Amino acid sequence: MALIDLARERRSIRRFRRDPISDEDLRYILEVAHYAPSGANRQPWRFVIVKDPNLKKRIREICEEIEREFYKHVPEWFRNFARERGISWRKPHLEEAPVLIHVFGYRRSPHWKESVWLMIGYLLLAAAEKGYATLTYTPSDTRWANEFFNVPENWGLETIINIGYPAQEPSYPGRLELSEICYENSWGIKYFKE
Amino acid sequence: MALIDLARERRSIRRFRRDPISDEDLRYILEVAHYAPSGANRQPWRFVIVKDPNLKKRIREICEEIEREFYKHVPEWFRNFARERGISWRKPHLEEAPVLIHVFGYRRSPHWKESVWLMIGYLLLAAAEKGYATLTYTPSDTRWANEFFNVPENWGLETIINIGYPAQEPSYPGRLELSEICYENSWGIKYFKE
Repeated sequence: MALIDLARERRSIRRFRRDPISDEDLRYILEVAHYAPSGANRQPWRFVIVKDPNLKKRIREICEEIEREFYKHVPEWFRNFARERGISWRKPHLEEAPVLIHVFGYRRSPHWKESVWLMIGYLLLAAAEKGYATLTYTPSDTRWANEFFNVPENWGLETIINIGYPAQEPSYPGRLELSEICYENSWGIKYFKE
Repeated sequence: MALIDLARERRSIRRFRRDPISDEDLRYILEVAHYAPSGANRQPWRFVIVKDPNLKKRIREICEEIEREFYKHVPEWFRNFARERGISWRKPHLEEAPVLIHVFGYRRSPHWKESVWLMIGYLLLAAAEKGYATLTYTPSDTRWANEFFNVPENWGLETIINIGYPAQEPSYPGRLELSEICYENSWGIKYFKE
């Protein structure tokens, strides 16, 4: 399958079926991800994988508590955006998705955040290639994760990648046209005329 | 081609042949990239593409001036790392690579940096799929780019992606094993035993 098809058809999903995903697929997805380039090749990422239902339930509880507080203070445009898409403080995907990948970044490596997220681009495409839907969910506060997962100093939770099969029809919010976002030599000069 | 092969075989390269890359390929690469998901679907990225030799020469001069200064103050480990890999303040790739993609990020969007770099993961894989080598080069100071490219407020240069055909045999610095970076339920508990 050409990359363009993977990229075009990949969807973010907020409700998952509970069907498990195979370790073979999970290994493939993480293998693709771990080949990503990183600043000074430091590979400033680690993955804490959680499949255990009780642990997922506890993680959901922690995150929902954080988000309930967060949603009290979000700006108006975000609240509207979220409502339109059915996003709220509720995070059922944390229990439903068969696999949660907690991605940690090492905050002492050069360009660590850039490297971690570039790698996540690899990871999402690999999940799509294997037929899975993903949701990249970053709790509004991530500090709880260090104690919860027994994480050493200078490492921090960057995001939780939820992987599984969709339990809802994904919506596609669209993208800007290339002609709108690609310039030649100077800002605003369209590179592609159409 | 399976994603795992693209990811495994993609290499960073610091010397490019000057052969041009087709607009068709460039469009494909940017099209893959622009499908990347982003925080609140804000797509907080714009691309300034430069192919003009005179402009590339000027960009190289600016960046080399910045790096000459930067290299006077880098930590010892970085200087050694760079020397081993033949990296210095010299940036010939900025003139040699037929295409420079200047990636700008919108600093007012939610999770803008994460989104931009996730998108770059897509972009690098798409370039690999089309047979190109890439170098993601971020100048130590990027503020010059706003005036240089006539960039509006709140947008900033995140990186310059150099794309072309390699003029050197790429070296592969290796990766950690999955067993070393994937944990189950808690830090340090190996998910994959091998």
